[in-house]
Amino acid sequence: MKPKDFKEMRKKLTELTLERSNLNIKRFFALDHSAYEEGALDAKTKELLGLVASMVLRCDDCIYYHLEQCFNAKINTEELMEALNIALVVGGSIVIPHLRRAIKYWEDLSYDSSQV
Amino acid sequence: MKPKDFKEMRKKLTELTLERSNLNIKRFFALDHSAYEEGALDAKTKELLGLVASMVLRCDDCIYYHLEQCFNAKINTEELMEALNIALVVGGSIVIPHLRRAIKYWEDLSYDSSQV
Amino acid sequence: MKPKDFKEMRKKLTELTLERSNLNIKRFFALDHSAYEEGALDAKTKELLGLVASMVLRCDDCIYYHLEQCFNAKINTEELMEALNIALVVGGSIVIPHLRRAIKYWEDLSYDSSQV
Amino acid sequence: MKPKDFKEMRKKLTELTLERSNLNIKRFFALDHSAYEEGALDAKTKELLGLVASMVLRCDDCIYYHLEQCFNAKINTEELMEALNIALVVGGSIVIPHLRRAIKYWEDLSYDSSQV
Amino acid sequence: MKPKDFKEMRKKLTELTLERSNLNIKRFFALDHSAYEEGALDAKTKELLGLVASMVLRCDDCIYYHLEQCFNAKINTEELMEALNIALVVGGSIVIPHLRRAIKYWEDLSYDSSQV
Amino acid sequence: MKPKDFKEMRKKLTELTLERSNLNIKRFFALDHSAYEEGALDAKTKELLGLVASMVLRCDDCIYYHLEQCFNAKINTEELMEALNIALVVGGSIVIPHLRRAIKYWEDLSYDSSQV
Repeated sequence: MKPKDFKEMRKKLTELTLERSNLNIKRFFALDHSAYEEGALDAKTKELLGLVASMVLRCDDCIYYHLEQCFNAKINTEELMEALNIALVVGGSIVIPHLRRAIKYWEDLSYDSSQV
Repeated sequence: MKPKDFKEMRKKLTELTLERSNLNIKRFFALDHSAYEEGALDAKTKELLGLVASMVLRCDDCIYYHLEQCFNAKINTEELMEALNIALVVGGSIVIPHLRRAIKYWEDLSYDSSQV
Repeated sequence: MKPKDFKEMRKKLTELTLERSNLNIKRFFALDHSAYEEGALDAKTKELLGLVASMVLRCDDCIYYHLEQCFNAKINTEELMEALNIALVVGGSIVIPHLRRAIKYWEDLSYDSSQV
Repeated sequence: MKPKDFKEMRKKLTELTLERSNLNIKRFFALDHSAYEEGALDAKTKELLGLVASMVLRCDDCIYYHLEQCFNAKINTEELMEALNIALVVGGSIVIPHLRRAIKYWEDLSYDSSQV
Repeated sequence: MKPKDFKEMRKKLTELTLERSNLNIKRFFALDHSAYEEGALDAKTKELLGLVASMVLRCDDCIYYHLEQCFNAKINTEELMEALNIALVVGGSIVIPHLRRAIKYWEDLSYDSSQV
Repeated sequence: MKPKDFKEMRKKLTELTLERSNLNIKRFFALDHSAYEEGALDAKTKELLGLVASMVLRCDDCIYYHLEQCFNAKINTEELMEALNIALVVGGSIVIPHLRRAIKYWEDLSYDSSQV
């Protein structure tokens, strides 16, 4: 999936979700958001933690989201590959299809950014 | 995925599966079916159990199927949201992409039903 | 594990956890608690949802906790077995070791209660 | 997904992945490859092991890949169904959507092969 | 856990489980049993499939049970190690603690057998 | 489990495992080791990545191991809690029993270290 399409789809579905959700679900979204805020650990480290967790749990949407956050946090490709390698070793070959798509998505993010 | 498309795809693939399967696989399908039949627990409660199990195990096809069963069992949106919230809290933010799609599917089910 | 020992261990570790935790972790515990409160769905249904989610995700501590809540909510053995069967069918034979321990724990809860 | 499309997509993404990866990721790919080489266990048995592992972990891309390897290793449909049944019993009904797609993919592999 | 202790515990809990279970749970146990019976695939291959599935899903009780079945089916250590390696590569380093215990259990099975 | 007992048990079982393993398994252990070596990302960040991956996949032995590595890498309690919170939010309440034991283990590590 292309970054632009993913972002649009995610935005639309999140809006609908928050509109229909009860208070407890909304609170969960707030907690989720604040988990990645700069604190004792910097935002860059936290995004890598979110990315690796998403990789080993094998959730493409979560991976794409954290890849964007990593990209915006100026994580470079060498750092990214070391984090992806940890996810691969911990999670095993079952992670490979997500690794392939992650690397393609990262490529697309870099390309889009170079076109601005 | 739209309810109509999902139902058609599911029907076609299930037919092929049962045609090609051995006796043990067919028996599993029968056990799966009877697990949700009215008993000491009513069908409505059982469909919610199936839905929450599908959410925390993160299987979209299973979620769509149980959403339809919940819809047909006249579960209302407030009840659904409380069940989805339990799935979200137990399963974590990794469940969110499935939550978004579940709420969209529920919306589509409601819309389709209002058009009849 | 016996109900009495489990409850003691759980209490001690939860106290230490909340003492050492940051605000966000404490908030998560609060959200977890409120997910099971009586609402559009009654507490009994919600405990069954928590139990089945814990079974298919195969977490003994979570199973023991929800078994106690189910017991206190006066769920009877026939209802419990239907919920456990759904967990078994959805989650597969990998759930069986947890099913065995759940049934033993339920037996112990019933025995303890008959001794009061 | 059709076998031809899957193979093409997989090839293109694997090439990109290996191009961008660091040495450790490349080494993982080599280890993954050698795990299925004929040894004390024959290649046919090893592909079935890979298939069942992929089924219970519910990864479609991994399933499609091992189905092709099983097909090339001359595993017949009766043998395949017994392996798929083990995956279904161990992994539970949550595996069913993957089972359906696996049987469709096997059907397509057989059809493609009969057209050569 | 020692093979003798595991077998005793498992037997006692299975008896209690079947005594308390409803008909559907008993049917699941029967399906589980018949999945490993000699058929188009021999019993040895099926036990290896059960073992690898149990390893990647990380269930010690299931692993111990299938190790015993593999041992009784005269699978040798070299064959076992190749199957365990597939489980390790597919499932990743998260499988390692189970691998360690599996190899210890296999050692104990071999020792017990040499003492008869 | 106490840090001292865990370390001893782990050492003994790892030795047996490497003694009995084939070459591919040994290679996996080497890859696992090198994933956490200082590189573009520092060792401290990598240990946190290993810890969070172990938390969301819910493997106590893996968690204890990475807690020790985090402790040796001078990660402080505030940083640890932020990483554990990410694991909790991503993985959900099913992670809580592991969180409790992780915090107890961290407490024991701190105590042991203060006694030297």
